[in-house]
Amino acid sequence: MNKWKKILIFLMLPIGAYAQDLSLVQYVKPIIGTAKMGHTFPGATVPFGSVQLSPDTDTIPYAVDGKYNGEVYKYCAGYQYADPTIVGFSHTHFSGTGHSDLGDFLIMPTTGDVQMNPGTSDQPENGYRSAYSHDNEVAEPNYYRVKLDDHQILAELTTSARVGFHQYTFPKSSNGHIILDLMAGIYNYDDKNVWTVVRVVNDSLVTGYRQTNGWGRTRTVYFAMSFSKPFKEYGTQNNDPVQVYKGFWRKFNQEKNFPDLAGKKLRMHFDFSTEEGEKVKIKFAISPVSMQNALANMQAEIPHWDFDRVKHHGQQLWEKELQKIVVDVPTNEDRINFYTAMYHAALMPTMYMDNNGQYKGLDQEVHQADGFTNYTSFSLWDTFRAFHPYLNLVNPKRNADMVASMMAHYQQSVLHMLPIWSHYANDNWCMSGYHSVSVIADAIIKGVYKGDALAALEACIQTANARNYDGIGAYIDKGYVPADISGTAVSNTLEYAYDDWCIAQLAKKLGRMDVYQDFIKRSSNWKNVYDPSVGFMRPRMTDGTFKRDFDVLKTDGQGFIEGNAWNFSLYVPHDPEGMMVNMGGKKRLSRYLDSLFSMHLPDEFFAHTEDITRDGIIGNYVHGNEPSHHVAYLYNITGEPWKAQQKIRMILKHQYHNGADGLGGNDDCGQMSAWFIFSSLGFYPVAPASDEYWLGSPAVRNAKLQFDNGNTLIVKAINQSDKNVFVKKVTLNGEEVKSYKLKHADLMNGGELIFYMSEKK
Amino acid sequence: MNKWKKILIFLMLPIGAYAQDLSLVQYVKPIIGTAKMGHTFPGATVPFGSVQLSPDTDTIPYAVDGKYNGEVYKYCAGYQYADPTIVGFSHTHFSGTGHSDLGDFLIMPTTGDVQMNPGTSDQPENGYRSAYSHDNEVAEPNYYRVKLDDHQILAELTTSARVGFHQYTFPKSSNGHIILDLMAGIYNYDDKNVWTVVRVVNDSLVTGYRQTNGWGRTRTVYFAMSFSKPFKEYGTQNNDPVQVYKGFWRKFNQEKNFPDLAGKKLRMHFDFSTEEGEKVKIKFAISPVSMQNALANMQAEIPHWDFDRVKHHGQQLWEKELQKIVVDVPTNEDRINFYTAMYHAALMPTMYMDNNGQYKGLDQEVHQADGFTNYTSFSLWDTFRAFHPYLNLVNPKRNADMVASMMAHYQQSVLHMLPIWSHYANDNWCMSGYHSVSVIADAIIKGVYKGDALAALEACIQTANARNYDGIGAYIDKGYVPADISGTAVSNTLEYAYDDWCIAQLAKKLGRMDVYQDFIKRSSNWKNVYDPSVGFMRPRMTDGTFKRDFDVLKTDGQGFIEGNAWNFSLYVPHDPEGMMVNMGGKKRLSRYLDSLFSMHLPDEFFAHTEDITRDGIIGNYVHGNEPSHHVAYLYNITGEPWKAQQKIRMILKHQYHNGADGLGGNDDCGQMSAWFIFSSLGFYPVAPASDEYWLGSPAVRNAKLQFDNGNTLIVKAINQSDKNVFVKKVTLNGEEVKSYKLKHADLMNGGELIFYMSEKK
Repeated sequence: MNKWKKILIFLMLPIGAYAQDLSLVQYVKPIIGTAKMGHTFPGATVPFGSVQLSPDTDTIPYAVDGKYNGEVYKYCAGYQYADPTIVGFSHTHFSGTGHSDLGDFLIMPTTGDVQMNPGTSDQPENGYRSAYSHDNEVAEPNYYRVKLDDHQILAELTTSARVGFHQYTFPKSSNGHIILDLMAGIYNYDDKNVWTVVRVVNDSLVTGYRQTNGWGRTRTVYFAMSFSKPFKEYGTQNNDPVQVYKGFWRKFNQEKNFPDLAGKKLRMHFDFSTEEGEKVKIKFAISPVSMQNALANMQAEIPHWDFDRVKHHGQQLWEKELQKIVVDVPTNEDRINFYTAMYHAALMPTMYMDNNGQYKGLDQEVHQADGFTNYTSFSLWDTFRAFHPYLNLVNPKRNADMVASMMAHYQQSVLHMLPIWSHYANDNWCMSGYHSVSVIADAIIKGVYKGDALAALEACIQTANARNYDGIGAYIDKGYVPADISGTAVSNTLEYAYDDWCIAQLAKKLGRMDVYQDFIKRSSNWKNVYDPSVGFMRPRMTDGTFKRDFDVLKTDGQGFIEGNAWNFSLYVPHDPEGMMVNMGGKKRLSRYLDSLFSMHLPDEFFAHTEDITRDGIIGNYVHGNEPSHHVAYLYNITGEPWKAQQKIRMILKHQYHNGADGLGGNDDCGQMSAWFIFSSLGFYPVAPASDEYWLGSPAVRNAKLQFDNGNTLIVKAINQSDKNVFVKKVTLNGEEVKSYKLKHADLMNGGELIFYMSEKK
Repeated sequence: MNKWKKILIFLMLPIGAYAQDLSLVQYVKPIIGTAKMGHTFPGATVPFGSVQLSPDTDTIPYAVDGKYNGEVYKYCAGYQYADPTIVGFSHTHFSGTGHSDLGDFLIMPTTGDVQMNPGTSDQPENGYRSAYSHDNEVAEPNYYRVKLDDHQILAELTTSARVGFHQYTFPKSSNGHIILDLMAGIYNYDDKNVWTVVRVVNDSLVTGYRQTNGWGRTRTVYFAMSFSKPFKEYGTQNNDPVQVYKGFWRKFNQEKNFPDLAGKKLRMHFDFSTEEGEKVKIKFAISPVSMQNALANMQAEIPHWDFDRVKHHGQQLWEKELQKIVVDVPTNEDRINFYTAMYHAALMPTMYMDNNGQYKGLDQEVHQADGFTNYTSFSLWDTFRAFHPYLNLVNPKRNADMVASMMAHYQQSVLHMLPIWSHYANDNWCMSGYHSVSVIADAIIKGVYKGDALAALEACIQTANARNYDGIGAYIDKGYVPADISGTAVSNTLEYAYDDWCIAQLAKKLGRMDVYQDFIKRSSNWKNVYDPSVGFMRPRMTDGTFKRDFDVLKTDGQGFIEGNAWNFSLYVPHDPEGMMVNMGGKKRLSRYLDSLFSMHLPDEFFAHTEDITRDGIIGNYVHGNEPSHHVAYLYNITGEPWKAQQKIRMILKHQYHNGADGLGGNDDCGQMSAWFIFSSLGFYPVAPASDEYWLGSPAVRNAKLQFDNGNTLIVKAINQSDKNVFVKKVTLNGEEVKSYKLKHADLMNGGELIFYMSEKK
């Protein structure tokens, strides 16, 4: 223990008044991933917080004249590091997605004449937005600061779970403003704002809500906005077309100091006179249920105006999250990569309920979360792989609550389905598979979820038998999704087969052997889309023939999603040995893997593939997209673990670094980060629901994992260095690990996992 | 008492199996007022019920190309007697308004190929609508029946407070349908439907909601729809433009048997096979709060499928309402007029809360009605005059609850105002004045409202000082609303002055003499818009001069609303004697009134005045618009009560009759009917909040009023006949009434009010 104390003391560099409490927080750089395709946000939030208060650097429309605007893809998290201006600070952001929504309730402090339009990045002076410099920008966990050059205002942001806390330091001005732009949003399009209501309750409190029809189809967020100082005046810009109906509203002047507003496209300004250096603070609470709940959230979470206290409290929460794994790594850059990965793996899913436990369910009714914390925004196609297993290891209570949230979603689903991509009170149905079942099976098999396991199994079965969903009916009837009825027929088939295996494992665990038999049979359906004549998984038609025109490098139109045939043909995580046999044995698989990691792709490939750049791939191995996340580990079954070790260390080194462009692809709601964490520790959950990890090559020197069961696991890499990537031997509590697998239960017992590293394979 | 029993026995004509309970219900003809401008609906409802389930005979858009479509005015209640087709049956209707909204959730049973468009009245076969004949139509309180010729279906409707019960008798068909048109609405325009959600819970239950932006700006109604028989299949027509965002929804076929729908413009069909004469029944419950509340309302109110039981229960409720006044009148037509008036005076305001007491407030939050029944749809400019005083007389509990509802509205108002025209969770701000204060003052002064009177006074004061509302600021500053800042400056001034007098009366009653002094002073502001040089109330400019161009016959552009200078110049109900002095004394007023009732108006007048036809006026006296409702009674102060008596009896005889076109103008939410009831009984509340009625000439032979305090008032007209319209003497409990006024409190003591009628004045 003394040794650990020493490391901790060593780590304790002062950051602010509360430094002694925040030894690990300082290594988190939220700016990582904010350039290019990381799609992370730099703003303030607490772990899994409902509010993500962060700058938005542009407001690109989703579509122009009804056509998708490719530019918008950059703005999934609202912020792009290269942009020269900040439009404002909004309260909700996804982290690392490849599609988006949110950006609710954009606030911008300004000085000078009131400007009610955002302006453009090349002429920020024509709108309320402002130029800024990264020199004047600080991003820490739960703290963001930037100087807004156009307005000479210092903006500082922090949060509690459901409240964004803004602190704006003004110059002396008789013409200061807070803009509240209720039109702004991420992935906006003309009809996205369905309805907005605003009530100016008094000269320092505003409440309201906005309903949007975006990626989440029917999504309403309520708010309460409190000012530290009364505003002098306020005004409104209503951009709705004038309705013939609205005659009687002409009895009021609705543009100035009119407190009862509603419409589709509203903007507001609140006016102040300020002294030099005067701080105007705003508490902005949100709720999925009601304005009064938003106000109650504010009163419960931040009953005062002490910005530093809120900031510190949130940073303490982060410290507690980060302390779950204390690592000793060779360089400061490694340390920043590791803790930023832990940070990114604690942003989503987000808490989705009020302080009183209420939330709006998938059925659009108000529900009470009874005995669990309700979460939303499950990007399950990404996160079932490593993110949820990561939570099962060091954050089981949260994952248990996430499973409970999925079960609540299921109970509210008129389709009787578990979430695909739960999104506030919606499912946006993004990506393929029904991977809730993987998360649920893994959590129950590992003893994490303590709820009604038979009910959970039933939910899994119902979901897997939702015949109307994305080819499931045909999949059940024919054993594969035919390519003539689905554009992602092959990836669907492969993912369904894996999910079915998860259900089988869960059923076995629960003694439901009837269910096990059904689903273990279904789990071999991957074989039905393997074409031995070409050695790849290949789209197959209803009549049983394989699709004629077939390009093993392309993704679109080839029956896959986010992964071409080269990558997806390896996606049989539950039966890799079977897959290897099918492919012709160890040597064939070994050659296949070697080719994958080394082949040279034509430039044309990059032009037509979303979310992939040359930086983000190694040969044709695409680390930025998830289907290959287990692939490097497959060398374990070709008898060449040293190749796995080498590749994993290479990926750790080259796909993650400290820059704003430090992520090779979308972080995907923590999945990319969870891969980094597992792989840095030397093991990875190749097939969640198996209770097994596969061995890789640790990048840490030491790691201490503090489990919720009270046990501690020490991971040591003896003779660790950048060159010594090869693992000669592994012992767990003194016993040599003979296979390439570790049991989850064995790790949870704590003790010492020692890797003996070597320069030689 | 025996005599009354005899009358009751005489009245008991059999109508159906439950006839003995429904002696008065049979005299109600809901069809009265459904032709031309009465704007009543013929469908089924219970007293003050939340559901008004009634046929809609056309779906005219409010606006065409952004311009008001004059045709739509006819369809305030959804039904026009002259129309040849029925589009369907919707669940919410105003009664007798001149503007509208509602028409929520239109249902139509059909046979043959599915038709998802309503079609047109000249070619009903091109849509789901149907031709029908009045010969096959029956309209009773809480029961409506019609044969739908195009589909050979007998439609029957009844209701409980919050549930519409449909019973459709089908022919033998393998192709029967129930259409649920979620686009349809009254006073529809293109963007009125803000959002719709539908969930097909199972093969006989559908839930959902719709938000509209109509006359009520932010209005959401939730529903639960239960079928007596499972549907075979169902389908959807979504008329929204396709959104670029909606890619992932393509994973489902959303048009057929897809249970999770949302959008702006949805229609649905549910398909059945039926035997000859088979009844398909639907229970359709609504809620202002949630789908689950709608379902709970259904389960609480109609837990069975017995149509006749629901019908009978509602008719019993009607009988109970009607039994409050049992009249003996000369003819059956008189009896029908009287009880239909009582019926029309018990339709609005409507109950606006769920069985569990929840409702959505003006602040768009869910509230619990604590100790009162919450009501909405207060058309106060109309109803403060006679309708609410009528409730104070025979229905005080309801009026007390209505005042409590107004106080809740006030507490929820971010403008700190009592309702002007409360409309579900909105105020639509229709018409002028702040007449809540009249209703509240009258209810407190008459001892009806038992709530916090000082809080009510405070609400009245706040409302009267809402400077931003419709000229009140200028009115306070200058003593009148200047014509250059409001188009209805004169009527505003006159009505504010009356309302201020009501506040003064309430303040005096509560011992707040400071408030009394303020408002009694304001109550004389009517003098500031009287122009003695022309002898009329006249628009006055900010600079104090009267408006130059002034047409005493026109309304629009002359500073008035629904009444020209001739009519409105008499609107000083709280100080008629003062008004008379101002106008030059008794003789001048007498001549003025004589002219008003006898002058011949040019045809051009009718072309430019809404809601007025030659039938609806007597000379230039417009009974169809409310500002003159007290005018005939003013002859009492010119010393010519016989003229009042004659005019009142003339109006009773000519402005109300038994036909579908039996109302001379919009019934105005019961105000026209309340005038009829009071005037038929021989007295009228000229100035509510005064505790006084003015005498007229009764049209009944006898009337028995059963008060809630247990007392009974008998009204007798000795020597009554069509010719004997003049009142020689009036006695109350044997004492002669020497003045032209009766005290409310004296009537409430019960006893006998005897009018001695004569042929001679």
